Amino acid sequence: MTELNVALIGHLFMGKAHSNAYRQVSRFFDTKLKFRMKVLCGKACTDELEATARKYGWEESDCEWERVVARPDIDVVDISTPGYLHHPIALRAAQAGKHIICEKPLANTLAEAKEMLRAVEKAGVKHYVNYCYRRVPAVAFAKRLIEEGRLGEIYRYHGSYLQDWIMDPEFPLVWRLEKKYAGSGALGDIAAHATDMSQYLNSDVAEVAGALTTFIKERPRPADPSGAWGSKAAGTKKGRVTVDDDACFLAHFKNKSIGVFQATRFAGGRRNYHAFEIHGSKGSLAWNMEQCNELQFFDRTEPSVRQGFKTILVTEAEHPYVRAWWPPGHIIGYEHPFVHAFYDFLTCIEEDRVPEPSFRDGTKVQAVLDAVERSAKSRRWERVRV
Amino acid sequence: MTELNVALIGHLFMGKAHSNAYRQVSRFFDTKLKFRMKVLCGKACTDELEATARKYGWEESDCEWERVVARPDIDVVDISTPGYLHHPIALRAAQAGKHIICEKPLANTLAEAKEMLRAVEKAGVKHYVNYCYRRVPAVAFAKRLIEEGRLGEIYRYHGSYLQDWIMDPEFPLVWRLEKKYAGSGALGDIAAHATDMSQYLNSDVAEVAGALTTFIKERPRPADPSGAWGSKAAGTKKGRVTVDDDACFLAHFKNKSIGVFQATRFAGGRRNYHAFEIHGSKGSLAWNMEQCNELQFFDRTEPSVRQGFKTILVTEAEHPYVRAWWPPGHIIGYEHPFVHAFYDFLTCIEEDRVPEPSFRDGTKVQAVLDAVERSAKSRRWERVRV
Amino acid sequence: MTELNVALIGHLFMGKAHSNAYRQVSRFFDTKLKFRMKVLCGKACTDELEATARKYGWEESDCEWERVVARPDIDVVDISTPGYLHHPIALRAAQAGKHIICEKPLANTLAEAKEMLRAVEKAGVKHYVNYCYRRVPAVAFAKRLIEEGRLGEIYRYHGSYLQDWIMDPEFPLVWRLEKKYAGSGALGDIAAHATDMSQYLNSDVAEVAGALTTFIKERPRPADPSGAWGSKAAGTKKGRVTVDDDACFLAHFKNKSIGVFQATRFAGGRRNYHAFEIHGSKGSLAWNMEQCNELQFFDRTEPSVRQGFKTILVTEAEHPYVRAWWPPGHIIGYEHPFVHAFYDFLTCIEEDRVPEPSFRDGTKVQAVLDAVERSAKSRRWERVRV
Amino acid sequence: MTELNVALIGHLFMGKAHSNAYRQVSRFFDTKLKFRMKVLCGKACTDELEATARKYGWEESDCEWERVVARPDIDVVDISTPGYLHHPIALRAAQAGKHIICEKPLANTLAEAKEMLRAVEKAGVKHYVNYCYRRVPAVAFAKRLIEEGRLGEIYRYHGSYLQDWIMDPEFPLVWRLEKKYAGSGALGDIAAHATDMSQYLNSDVAEVAGALTTFIKERPRPADPSGAWGSKAAGTKKGRVTVDDDACFLAHFKNKSIGVFQATRFAGGRRNYHAFEIHGSKGSLAWNMEQCNELQFFDRTEPSVRQGFKTILVTEAEHPYVRAWWPPGHIIGYEHPFVHAFYDFLTCIEEDRVPEPSFRDGTKVQAVLDAVERSAKSRRWERVRV
Repeated sequence: MTELNVALIGHLFMGKAHSNAYRQVSRFFDTKLKFRMKVLCGKACTDELEATARKYGWEESDCEWERVVARPDIDVVDISTPGYLHHPIALRAAQAGKHIICEKPLANTLAEAKEMLRAVEKAGVKHYVNYCYRRVPAVAFAKRLIEEGRLGEIYRYHGSYLQDWIMDPEFPLVWRLEKKYAGSGALGDIAAHATDMSQYLNSDVAEVAGALTTFIKERPRPADPSGAWGSKAAGTKKGRVTVDDDACFLAHFKNKSIGVFQATRFAGGRRNYHAFEIHGSKGSLAWNMEQCNELQFFDRTEPSVRQGFKTILVTEAEHPYVRAWWPPGHIIGYEHPFVHAFYDFLTCIEEDRVPEPSFRDGTKVQAVLDAVERSAKSRRWERVRV
Repeated sequence: MTELNVALIGHLFMGKAHSNAYRQVSRFFDTKLKFRMKVLCGKACTDELEATARKYGWEESDCEWERVVARPDIDVVDISTPGYLHHPIALRAAQAGKHIICEKPLANTLAEAKEMLRAVEKAGVKHYVNYCYRRVPAVAFAKRLIEEGRLGEIYRYHGSYLQDWIMDPEFPLVWRLEKKYAGSGALGDIAAHATDMSQYLNSDVAEVAGALTTFIKERPRPADPSGAWGSKAAGTKKGRVTVDDDACFLAHFKNKSIGVFQATRFAGGRRNYHAFEIHGSKGSLAWNMEQCNELQFFDRTEPSVRQGFKTILVTEAEHPYVRAWWPPGHIIGYEHPFVHAFYDFLTCIEEDRVPEPSFRDGTKVQAVLDAVERSAKSRRWERVRV
Repeated sequence: MTELNVALIGHLFMGKAHSNAYRQVSRFFDTKLKFRMKVLCGKACTDELEATARKYGWEESDCEWERVVARPDIDVVDISTPGYLHHPIALRAAQAGKHIICEKPLANTLAEAKEMLRAVEKAGVKHYVNYCYRRVPAVAFAKRLIEEGRLGEIYRYHGSYLQDWIMDPEFPLVWRLEKKYAGSGALGDIAAHATDMSQYLNSDVAEVAGALTTFIKERPRPADPSGAWGSKAAGTKKGRVTVDDDACFLAHFKNKSIGVFQATRFAGGRRNYHAFEIHGSKGSLAWNMEQCNELQFFDRTEPSVRQGFKTILVTEAEHPYVRAWWPPGHIIGYEHPFVHAFYDFLTCIEEDRVPEPSFRDGTKVQAVLDAVERSAKSRRWERVRV
Repeated sequence: MTELNVALIGHLFMGKAHSNAYRQVSRFFDTKLKFRMKVLCGKACTDELEATARKYGWEESDCEWERVVARPDIDVVDISTPGYLHHPIALRAAQAGKHIICEKPLANTLAEAKEMLRAVEKAGVKHYVNYCYRRVPAVAFAKRLIEEGRLGEIYRYHGSYLQDWIMDPEFPLVWRLEKKYAGSGALGDIAAHATDMSQYLNSDVAEVAGALTTFIKERPRPADPSGAWGSKAAGTKKGRVTVDDDACFLAHFKNKSIGVFQATRFAGGRRNYHAFEIHGSKGSLAWNMEQCNELQFFDRTEPSVRQGFKTILVTEAEHPYVRAWWPPGHIIGYEHPFVHAFYDFLTCIEEDRVPEPSFRDGTKVQAVLDAVERSAKSRRWERVRV
């Protein structure tokens, strides 16, 4: 058995989800290669970090990503930090010849993303950006149905990502609400997911017309100065929100289909409503992450009296990734696609193939986000420049 | 153009629904024969009755059903009264050679129903009992799917009729809560619908094991002494509830399938939730009246990866009765099945065929209700005795 | 009893729906004033037109709208023709001092609409444009909730109108697909509904960025040369589709909220899916016409553990318009809002009030459609010019 | 840190789910006590068993449960075998002073269950029977709502557990279809879950009237003689099905409410549809396992115009067990309740409390199943004899 030593940089929400995936992947999937959870890296060398490392199953903890990335015993660097650190860490990791798993969005700007892509390609390392929803079984099955031609020619793509976690004006100015850390708001955080999904299922985006809106322009700074990194307690000082709360755009895809996208953190009651609806000449598909095991499929080739949206519970052994888990009808949850991603990553290393989505795919998403930002300023359609 | 002169006895809820159906049938369906709305008959000759008659489109009003039934110019007697009057009116109408439309349940007892059936058959008149849900397009389409063999052998039938209109203990003792007027409670009023539906879609019921429950045993009498007939204002005197609030039973059908039935007026939030779910060797069906335009169909003959409950919006021109109404996707409501029923009644008169469900079908329902009542007392399975 | 004599111009889909509403309104609602169904006007004086008139309950039929509009015994002119005739008929009817009911969209161009508005205001007649979905009980109830402040400040409005009736490339070039008759395609036919709904529930649209798409650019002409008016049989000659199949746009409302709109005739499986979702600081609402009796309401002021989208079955006596119909849980369908509209129209005549939506409201919708058309050409945001 | 050494007997479906829970519990929950996964015990000492043990995280494997149970280093015996082995293993484990986790149903007969209960109580060990659905967050939250009085007096309880995995007549005679191994069919396997749920949420069952049905009476024996334990390949020999395919019953609860239960393996399209609907004087609840993160709540105390079934996405930090997992809107799946159960088990050991459901609760379920079996034979209501 060969092991890949992993260093995970970031120990909050994504750190927790990635740790779980590293632990679980070879418990459910048969893999020749295995991950070894070597070191968890946080911002500060505290007892808390060490405790988190132990709880999540890491052998060590550290607080200097530069040191961690330079370690010769590390094979894979996993970048699960706020966005502004993706670029420096990825460049250094590539230079050091490490395979890289990077959280989305790939970078805070298109320029950074391009540089990161060049770096990994030059270094010849494996690179993967974690647009994890591609590996929800219902989504991977949607892809299969599309590839089988069951939608025919695709005319329309509607992508949504609706959340409501910052609707309270007293919710503090966490790092995700500051441009210098997060790059953008709903755009880079969740419109990015909707964009990658559309380019995966449908086609590359060619041009966009978009609008970015910030509904609440000032918020209390976190009570804890370092609180931007996790705490949600508000302090007394105010600060300016420098990212968008809401990102909407129209798109023309390269395959001539039309796209309508909306991403927002101000949709009360939609906690994590990542959704698509696709209309093609032969059929339609609809899905959302809050009922992520279900895929809606409408087949226009059936006799019209028996047509209807069918709710496929994507839990059959023959559905993508499902055989590894539970019997039909036994649903899986949010964290499972991370496991699927790491399983595929292991397989790509074994078979020397490029994981998907790669930094190239991540850069393509970045190019769309960049075009949306340009369009929001120019107030006209802007071409995507990859 | 030939006209059938109708006398409608009963001017409350069912009177309103029937009046609408008489008015609408030839506006939407092409019929050679037409109804002429001759006389509306109520309990008392009041200005209000006369105003109702005019509003609903009747030429005259009257308050003596015996007189109305005896009129030589009347062709059809429509009995939409409380249950205890079905029997005397039907006998007299049959004797007078009138065709009869009778609201459900056919009678307050099995014995009455049998006598009514004998009377109409002896008189050679047309007879129809208004289990109207058979003619919801989605239900009629379910019947077609079953007849096409798409469910295969039926194993299980689950029928529900859930309401909540009398949950408030201060809701008064209206006629539907008194045995002498209504015969029974949830049993005869709504379990009757669920029963007819099952015998229509599946098979005759052979035996049952049931339970009847009265949750609120005493209620205020209506403020208006004649209020039992419509008013919902409670008075100060109390009275005993002499019918069931809830009727549940297991059933064995003649085709060997198993049945589970529940009817209740104590299901908070289920306003008029008449539903079935049927499981067969090749497929399943599910439907409920609150979304009455939708039929759920599960096809077990599809590949398992593409199986799923399909929501068929039963609004295509090719669906039963739909062509007469609106284009696909434009739904219809509660009152439309009454129109369908009267359209079919007209056609049966024209073509000298027996309408369905006939008094014979109504008597079969009554026989099941009777067996449930016997079982609730004997506390064992009881055979249905038709 | 006073009667208003009506002339209905147009006898196809809308003619049928309007005829029903004229017949039904005073059967269910108590009105002092009543409609008298005087004359149905079609394109040609045929036996078929006369038969339709009789079937639908009209006293006479005619085929010269100019003659009909000029009749001194006519009080109300109802314009239910293809769009290109709205303008000439409305001008003539206003001149003749008739009250006007006009199908939507008000006109084929903004200029026409403005002229129509000037004409009716100058003539001092009542004018109503039939954006009928405002009077679906669930929609009127949504309006009430918004007026009660239950959504707080509205941040986002998502309006959709999805259909699929022309997806087959062999579906013929009916009048709705020719600019000279229909003005535009999905834009004027259904985006118009979505726009009016948003201006009713939320705020006037200030500016838009839009895209219009024609997926199928050529279609067979109808077999019957006059078939464009109803027949769906395709002939052998081809013709160019001169309207849009799909209309999408982003919007900024005057109240600063953001709008995302999509209207299409190419959404397989969405037969008549007119929908909105509204997100405000205190709550959210969602609705669609295929389940038109249900309103989804999310209340952000509840404790978060008990928050959730609530499905309100809008069939209580206290809900708008419902008391006139059936008991709770007994749903209504597509045609009922037309009845509500005509009831309100009668009341406005009685009380000398302006019906809503008026030609002014209709012109405001037209101004939005006009801005979308300009934006689709200019490829930038365009202001709405009322 | 103190560790509890676990021996898990059974390595198939439940073995996999339990192994996952042992691994995960202290990764997500903060526990002083921790499980140590000592030994996995299967039927035969094969390489496959050893590989499974390693894959699932066990230190050792063994194939003699008697030897395993006798090991002095084992603190907890987890019985995840077919039902017929629960009794002998539990007696031996209790005698050896081990804490016991036992899969449901507790035993194959009521007599066995009672003996097991006596044994564990006499031995003074902790005992837990894994009716795991109690710990789905939405279910635990339903319990909380009921305890807060939000349903008022409960009138009705409808429990369902619908599956379809043996509908194919060629599906082989696996151990779950043989009485000598499984005790009963749908009754003990899934009606048992529905029964426990009802006794947890509502009240103990007092009496029942039931029906047991076997639709397919003969099936091919598994190809592999030992295949009854897992393989689904059918052989050529036929064997008799000695258990029920379907179990339905009516119930009277001790709190006077009425129950309607149905459990079946013949409901096409219902893969793992474990559901309840509860109607009380103040509110209603509905839930099903295929959308297990959602709880439907209807509040009768709201004004009727704003009443409706509310879909609560039970993913808030304040919801039971949820804080340990993911942010709001990020759903969990089938296996998580097992983790919750083992977390609570650890806490009970730490705090010397009785875990729930205990063998006493498990015996109560058994008593209901026993009454259903008696009723199915006697064809009358039978009292539950605990």
